[in-house]
Amino acid sequence: MESSATLSLSQLAYVYPATPRSNKAYPFWPCKRRSSQPTRLHCNKMYVPGFGEASPEAKAAKNLHNFFTYVAVKIVAAQLESYNPEAYEELIEFLGRHSLNDGDKFCASMFRESSRHKNLALRIMEVRSAYCKNDFEWDNLKRLAFKMVTESNTRLMTEYVLETSHVESEK
Amino acid sequence: MESSATLSLSQLAYVYPATPRSNKAYPFWPCKRRSSQPTRLHCNKMYVPGFGEASPEAKAAKNLHNFFTYVAVKIVAAQLESYNPEAYEELIEFLGRHSLNDGDKFCASMFRESSRHKNLALRIMEVRSAYCKNDFEWDNLKRLAFKMVTESNTRLMTEYVLETSHVESEK
Repeated sequence: MESSATLSLSQLAYVYPATPRSNKAYPFWPCKRRSSQPTRLHCNKMYVPGFGEASPEAKAAKNLHNFFTYVAVKIVAAQLESYNPEAYEELIEFLGRHSLNDGDKFCASMFRESSRHKNLALRIMEVRSAYCKNDFEWDNLKRLAFKMVTESNTRLMTEYVLETSHVESEK
Repeated sequence: MESSATLSLSQLAYVYPATPRSNKAYPFWPCKRRSSQPTRLHCNKMYVPGFGEASPEAKAAKNLHNFFTYVAVKIVAAQLESYNPEAYEELIEFLGRHSLNDGDKFCASMFRESSRHKNLALRIMEVRSAYCKNDFEWDNLKRLAFKMVTESNTRLMTEYVLETSHVESEK
Protein backbone atom coordinates (compact mmCIF):
# COMPACT_ATOMS: atom_id res chain seq x y z
CA MET A 1 0.00 0.00 0.00
CA GLU A 2 2.86 2.30 0.88
CA SER A 3 4.42 1.89 -2.53
CA SER A 4 1.25 2.76 -4.42
CA ALA A 5 0.76 5.84 -2.26
CA THR A 6 4.31 6.93 -3.02
CA LEU A 7 3.78 6.28 -6.70
CA SER A 8 0.68 8.43 -6.65
CA LEU A 9 2.59 11.15 -4.82
CA SER A 10 5.26 11.41 -7.49
CA GLN A 11 2.66 11.25 -10.26
CA LEU A 12 0.58 14.04 -8.80
CA ALA A 13 3.23 16.46 -7.64
CA TYR A 14 3.48 18.63 -10.71
CA VAL A 15 1.44 21.74 -9.97
CA TYR A 16 3.46 22.99 -7.01
CA PRO A 17 7.10 22.09 -6.60
CA ALA A 18 7.27 19.17 -4.22
CA THR A 19 9.12 19.59 -0.98
CA PRO A 20 12.22 17.44 -0.73
CA ARG A 21 11.57 14.05 0.85
CA SER A 22 14.87 13.94 2.70
CA ASN A 23 15.31 15.14 6.26
CA LYS A 24 17.18 18.23 5.08
CA ALA A 25 15.78 21.72 5.41
CA TYR A 26 13.89 23.35 2.55
CA PRO A 27 16.46 25.35 0.59
CA PHE A 28 13.91 27.48 -1.28
CA TRP A 29 12.86 29.34 1.85
CA PRO A 30 15.94 30.84 3.47
CA CYS A 31 15.73 32.19 6.98
CA LYS A 32 14.74 35.84 7.11
CA ARG A 33 17.67 36.94 9.21
CA ARG A 34 20.43 35.17 7.31
CA SER A 35 23.57 37.26 7.07
CA SER A 36 26.97 36.75 5.51
CA GLN A 37 28.46 36.38 9.00
CA PRO A 38 28.41 32.92 10.49
CA THR A 39 25.81 33.03 13.26
CA ARG A 40 24.49 30.66 15.88
CA LEU A 41 20.90 31.05 14.62
CA HIS A 42 19.25 27.87 13.35
CA CYS A 43 18.79 29.22 9.86
CA ASN A 44 18.20 25.81 8.31
CA LYS A 45 14.75 25.74 9.85
CA MET A 46 11.55 26.59 8.04
CA TYR A 47 10.24 30.10 8.60
CA VAL A 48 7.07 30.03 10.74
CA PRO A 49 5.13 33.31 10.52
CA GLY A 50 2.30 34.56 12.70
CA PHE A 51 3.58 33.95 16.22
CA GLY A 52 4.79 37.49 16.86
CA GLU A 53 7.19 37.65 19.78
CA ALA A 54 6.25 34.16 20.95
CA SER A 55 7.37 30.88 19.40
CA PRO A 56 5.34 27.84 18.37
CA GLU A 57 7.00 26.07 21.32
CA ALA A 58 5.72 28.75 23.73
CA LYS A 59 2.21 28.46 22.31
CA ALA A 60 2.31 24.67 22.62
CA ALA A 61 3.66 24.99 26.19
CA LYS A 62 0.79 27.33 27.09
CA ASN A 63 -1.71 24.77 25.79
CA LEU A 64 0.01 22.00 27.73
CA HIS A 65 -0.05 24.19 30.84
CA ASN A 66 -3.85 24.41 30.62
CA PHE A 67 -3.99 20.69 29.91
CA PHE A 68 -1.94 19.95 33.05
CA THR A 69 -4.39 22.01 35.12
CA TYR A 70 -7.23 19.96 33.65
CA VAL A 71 -5.38 16.72 34.49
CA ALA A 72 -4.63 17.99 38.03
CA VAL A 73 -8.32 18.72 38.60
CA LYS A 74 -9.14 15.17 37.47
CA ILE A 75 -6.48 13.72 39.80
CA VAL A 76 -7.59 15.77 42.82
CA ALA A 77 -11.27 14.99 42.16
CA ALA A 78 -10.51 11.26 42.04
CA GLN A 79 -8.53 11.52 45.28
CA LEU A 80 -11.24 13.48 47.11
CA GLU A 81 -14.11 11.30 45.89
CA SER A 82 -12.95 8.40 48.01
CA TYR A 83 -12.01 10.05 51.28
CA ASN A 84 -13.56 13.53 51.34
CA PRO A 85 -16.96 13.48 49.58
CA GLU A 86 -17.82 16.95 50.88
CA ALA A 87 -14.78 18.56 49.29
CA TYR A 88 -15.43 16.50 46.15
CA GLU A 89 -18.95 17.94 45.90
CA GLU A 90 -17.56 21.46 46.33
CA LEU A 91 -15.04 20.88 43.55
CA ILE A 92 -17.65 19.47 41.16
CA GLU A 93 -20.03 22.31 41.95
CA PHE A 94 -17.27 24.87 41.30
CA LEU A 95 -16.36 23.10 38.04
CA GLY A 96 -19.96 23.48 36.89
CA ARG A 97 -19.70 27.25 37.24
CA HIS A 98 -16.17 27.89 35.94
CA SER A 99 -14.46 27.00 32.67
CA LEU A 100 -11.22 25.03 32.75
CA ASN A 101 -10.07 26.40 29.39
CA ASP A 102 -7.77 28.89 31.10
CA GLY A 103 -6.11 26.99 33.95
CA ASP A 104 -4.62 30.02 35.69
CA LYS A 105 -7.90 31.94 35.59
CA PHE A 106 -9.65 28.88 37.02
CA CYS A 107 -7.17 28.66 39.91
CA ALA A 108 -7.33 32.42 40.57
CA SER A 109 -11.15 32.28 40.79
CA MET A 110 -11.02 29.27 43.07
CA PHE A 111 -8.52 31.04 45.34
CA ARG A 112 -11.04 33.81 45.95
CA GLU A 113 -14.16 31.64 46.36
CA SER A 114 -13.77 30.62 50.03
CA SER A 115 -11.04 29.45 52.38
CA ARG A 116 -11.92 25.83 51.60
CA HIS A 117 -11.73 26.48 47.86
CA LYS A 118 -8.46 28.30 48.39
CA ASN A 119 -6.88 25.17 49.82
CA LEU A 120 -8.35 23.14 47.00
CA ALA A 121 -6.76 25.56 44.51
CA LEU A 122 -3.38 25.28 46.28
CA ARG A 123 -3.61 21.54 46.01
CA ILE A 124 -4.51 21.61 42.30
CA MET A 125 -1.56 23.93 41.69
CA GLU A 126 0.84 21.62 43.49
CA VAL A 127 -0.51 18.57 41.67
CA ARG A 128 -0.17 20.20 38.24
CA SER A 129 3.43 21.11 39.02
CA ALA A 130 4.23 17.58 40.23
CA TYR A 131 2.41 16.04 37.27
CA CYS A 132 4.25 18.22 34.73
CA LYS A 133 7.66 17.65 36.31
CA ASN A 134 7.47 14.02 37.44
CA ASP A 135 4.58 12.04 36.00
CA PHE A 136 4.01 13.30 32.47
CA GLU A 137 5.95 11.17 29.98
CA TRP A 138 7.61 13.70 27.70
CA ASP A 139 9.49 11.11 25.65
CA ASN A 140 6.26 9.24 25.11
CA LEU A 141 4.58 12.43 23.92
CA LYS A 142 7.30 12.95 21.32
CA ARG A 143 7.19 9.32 20.20
CA LEU A 144 3.39 9.37 19.87
CA ALA A 145 3.45 12.64 17.91
CA PHE A 146 6.07 11.23 15.48
CA LYS A 147 4.00 8.09 15.03
CA MET A 148 0.78 10.06 14.60
CA VAL A 149 2.08 12.32 11.84
CA THR A 150 3.57 9.40 9.89
CA GLU A 151 0.50 7.20 10.23
CA SER A 152 -1.95 10.01 9.49
CA ASN A 153 -0.10 11.02 6.34
CA THR A 154 0.06 7.43 5.09
CA ARG A 155 -3.61 6.85 5.91
CA LEU A 156 -4.78 10.03 4.17
CA MET A 157 -2.81 9.18 1.01
CA THR A 158 -3.90 5.54 1.07
CA GLU A 159 -7.57 6.48 1.42
CA TYR A 160 -7.29 8.91 -1.44
CA VAL A 161 -5.50 6.44 -3.72
CA LEU A 162 -8.08 3.75 -2.94
CA GLU A 163 -10.92 6.15 -3.76
CA THR A 164 -9.27 7.23 -6.99
CA SER A 165 -8.53 3.68 -8.09
CA HIS A 166 -12.15 2.77 -7.40
CA VAL A 167 -13.47 5.62 -9.55
CA GLU A 168 -11.05 4.82 -12.35
CA SER A 169 -11.87 1.11 -12.36
CA GLU A 170 -15.59 1.97 -12.72
CA LYS A 171 -15.01 3.95 -15.92
CA MET B 1 7.94 37.56 48.07
CA GLU B 2 8.52 33.82 47.71
CA SER B 3 8.88 33.38 51.46
CA SER B 4 5.63 35.16 52.30
CA ALA B 5 3.78 33.03 49.75
CA THR B 6 5.20 29.88 51.33
CA LEU B 7 4.30 31.12 54.77
CA SER B 8 0.73 31.72 53.65
CA LEU B 9 0.63 28.25 52.11
CA SER B 10 1.54 26.53 55.38
CA GLN B 11 -0.83 28.77 57.33
CA LEU B 12 -3.75 28.07 55.06
CA ALA B 13 -3.36 24.40 54.37
CA TYR B 14 -5.53 22.99 57.12
CA VAL B 15 -8.85 22.10 55.50
CA TYR B 16 -7.57 19.49 53.08
CA PRO B 17 -4.37 17.54 53.74
CA ALA B 18 -1.62 19.26 51.83
CA THR B 19 0.20 17.36 49.13
CA PRO B 20 3.84 16.72 49.96
CA ARG B 21 6.14 19.42 48.71
CA SER B 22 8.94 17.05 47.78
CA ASN B 23 9.38 15.52 44.35
CA LYS B 24 8.23 12.14 45.61
CA ALA B 25 4.95 10.53 44.58
CA TYR B 26 1.81 11.01 46.65
CA PRO B 27 1.65 8.08 49.05
CA PHE B 28 -2.02 8.53 49.96
CA TRP B 29 -3.25 7.62 46.50
CA PRO B 30 -1.83 4.26 45.51
CA CYS B 31 -2.09 3.11 41.92
CA LYS B 32 -5.30 1.22 41.22
CA ARG B 33 -3.61 -1.86 39.83
CA ARG B 34 -1.05 -2.33 42.57
CA SER B 35 -0.53 -5.99 43.44
CA SER B 36 1.65 -7.81 45.93
CA GLN B 37 3.82 -9.04 43.07
CA PRO B 38 6.63 -6.76 41.98
CA THR B 39 5.60 -5.41 38.59
CA ARG B 40 7.11 -3.14 36.00
CA LEU B 41 4.15 -0.74 36.16
CA HIS B 42 4.97 2.80 37.29
CA CYS B 43 2.76 2.53 40.35
CA ASN B 44 4.34 5.51 42.09
CA LYS B 45 2.52 7.84 39.71
CA MET B 46 -0.69 9.66 40.47
CA TYR B 47 -3.84 8.02 39.16
CA VAL B 48 -5.33 10.02 36.29
CA PRO B 49 -8.96 9.08 35.62
CA GLY B 50 -11.14 9.91 32.64
CA PHE B 51 -8.94 9.06 29.68
CA GLY B 52 -10.44 5.62 28.99
CA GLU B 53 -8.17 3.52 26.80
CA ALA B 54 -6.04 6.51 25.83
CA SER B 55 -3.43 8.25 27.98
CA PRO B 56 -2.93 11.94 28.76
CA GLU B 57 0.18 11.72 26.57
CA ALA B 58 -1.91 10.43 23.63
CA LYS B 59 -4.41 13.24 24.09
CA ALA B 60 -1.63 15.82 24.22
CA ALA B 61 0.01 14.27 21.13
CA LYS B 62 -3.30 14.50 19.25
CA ASN B 63 -3.54 18.19 20.13
CA LEU B 64 0.05 18.76 19.04
CA HIS B 65 -0.68 16.91 15.79
CA ASN B 66 -3.44 19.40 14.97
CA PHE B 67 -1.14 22.24 16.02
CA PHE B 68 1.59 20.99 13.64
CA THR B 69 -0.93 20.99 10.78
CA TYR B 70 -1.79 24.59 11.66
CA VAL B 71 1.91 25.51 11.70
CA ALA B 72 2.48 23.69 8.39
CA VAL B 73 -0.34 25.67 6.77
CA LYS B 74 1.28 28.89 8.05
CA ILE B 75 4.68 27.82 6.67
CA VAL B 76 3.32 26.80 3.25
CA ALA B 77 1.24 29.98 2.99
CA ALA B 78 4.30 32.13 3.72
CA GLN B 79 6.31 30.22 1.11
CA LEU B 80 3.63 30.49 -1.58
CA GLU B 81 2.90 34.16 -0.92
CA SER B 82 6.25 35.20 -2.34
CA TYR B 83 6.61 33.01 -5.40
CA ASN B 84 3.17 31.61 -6.25
CA PRO B 85 0.46 34.18 -5.46
CA GLU B 86 -2.18 32.19 -7.32
CA ALA B 87 -1.69 29.09 -5.16
CA TYR B 88 -1.53 31.36 -2.10
CA GLU B 89 -4.95 32.81 -2.95
CA GLU B 90 -6.35 29.30 -3.38
CA LEU B 91 -5.01 28.27 0.00
CA ILE B 92 -6.41 31.34 1.77
CA GLU B 93 -9.77 30.88 0.06
CA PHE B 94 -9.86 27.23 1.14
CA LEU B 95 -8.90 28.22 4.71
CA GLY B 96 -11.88 30.56 4.81
CA ARG B 97 -14.23 27.66 4.11
CA HIS B 98 -12.66 24.90 6.23
CA SER B 99 -11.78 24.70 9.91
CA LEU B 100 -8.22 23.85 10.92
CA ASN B 101 -9.30 22.44 14.28
CA ASP B 102 -9.03 18.90 12.97
CA GLY B 103 -5.85 18.78 10.89
CA ASP B 104 -6.50 15.41 9.28
CA LYS B 105 -10.05 16.33 8.29
CA PHE B 106 -8.71 19.55 6.80
CA CYS B 107 -6.13 17.68 4.71
CA ALA B 108 -8.68 15.05 3.63
CA SER B 109 -11.08 17.77 2.43
CA MET B 110 -8.28 19.57 0.61
CA PHE B 111 -7.24 16.33 -1.11
CA ARG B 112 -10.70 16.04 -2.66
CA GLU B 113 -11.17 19.69 -3.66
CA SER B 114 -9.21 19.76 -6.93
CA SER B 115 -5.95 18.44 -8.33
CA ARG B 116 -4.23 21.71 -7.42
CA HIS B 117 -5.54 21.52 -3.87
CA LYS B 118 -4.48 17.90 -3.72
CA ASN B 119 -0.86 18.88 -4.30
CA LEU B 120 -1.18 21.64 -1.77
CA ALA B 121 -2.48 19.09 0.77
CA LEU B 122 0.44 16.75 0.01
CA ARG B 123 2.82 19.60 0.61
CA ILE B 124 1.17 20.57 3.92
CA MET B 125 1.38 16.94 5.04
CA GLU B 126 5.06 16.74 4.20
CA VAL B 127 5.80 20.02 5.93
CA ARG B 128 3.97 19.02 9.12
CA SER B 129 5.96 15.78 9.23
CA ALA B 130 9.27 17.59 8.68
CA TYR B 131 8.34 20.27 11.20
CA CYS B 132 7.37 17.74 13.87
CA LYS B 133 10.47 15.60 13.34
CA ASN B 134 13.17 18.18 12.63
CA ASP B 135 12.23 21.74 13.44
CA PHE B 136 10.03 21.64 16.53
CA GLU B 137 12.15 22.06 19.67
CA TRP B 138 10.88 19.36 22.00
CA ASP B 139 13.39 20.11 24.75
CA ASN B 140 12.40 23.74 24.63
CA LEU B 141 8.72 22.80 24.95
CA LYS B 142 9.49 20.83 28.11
CA ARG B 143 11.66 23.61 29.54
CA LEU B 144 8.99 26.25 28.85
CA ALA B 145 6.24 24.09 30.40
CA PHE B 146 8.31 23.55 33.57
CA LYS B 147 9.00 27.27 33.78
CA MET B 148 5.37 28.18 33.13
CA VAL B 149 3.93 25.98 35.87
CA THR B 150 6.44 27.23 38.47
CA GLU B 151 6.02 30.88 37.54
CA SER B 152 2.23 30.67 37.32
CA ASN B 153 1.93 29.02 40.73
CA THR B 154 4.19 31.59 42.35
CA ARG B 155 2.38 34.45 40.65
CA LEU B 156 -1.09 33.21 41.66
CA MET B 157 -0.02 32.83 45.29
CA THR B 158 1.81 36.14 45.35
CA GLU B 159 -1.19 37.99 43.93
CA TYR B 160 -3.46 36.39 46.50
CA VAL B 161 -1.15 37.17 49.42
CA LEU B 162 -0.81 40.77 48.27
CA GLU B 163 -4.58 41.12 48.06
CA THR B 164 -5.06 39.57 51.50
CA SER B 165 -2.37 41.72 53.12
CA HIS B 166 -3.96 44.78 51.59
CA VAL B 167 -7.38 43.93 53.03
CA GLU B 168 -5.94 43.16 56.45
CA SER B 169 -3.89 46.33 56.65
CA GLU B 170 -7.04 48.35 55.92
CA LYS B 171 -8.88 46.95 58.94
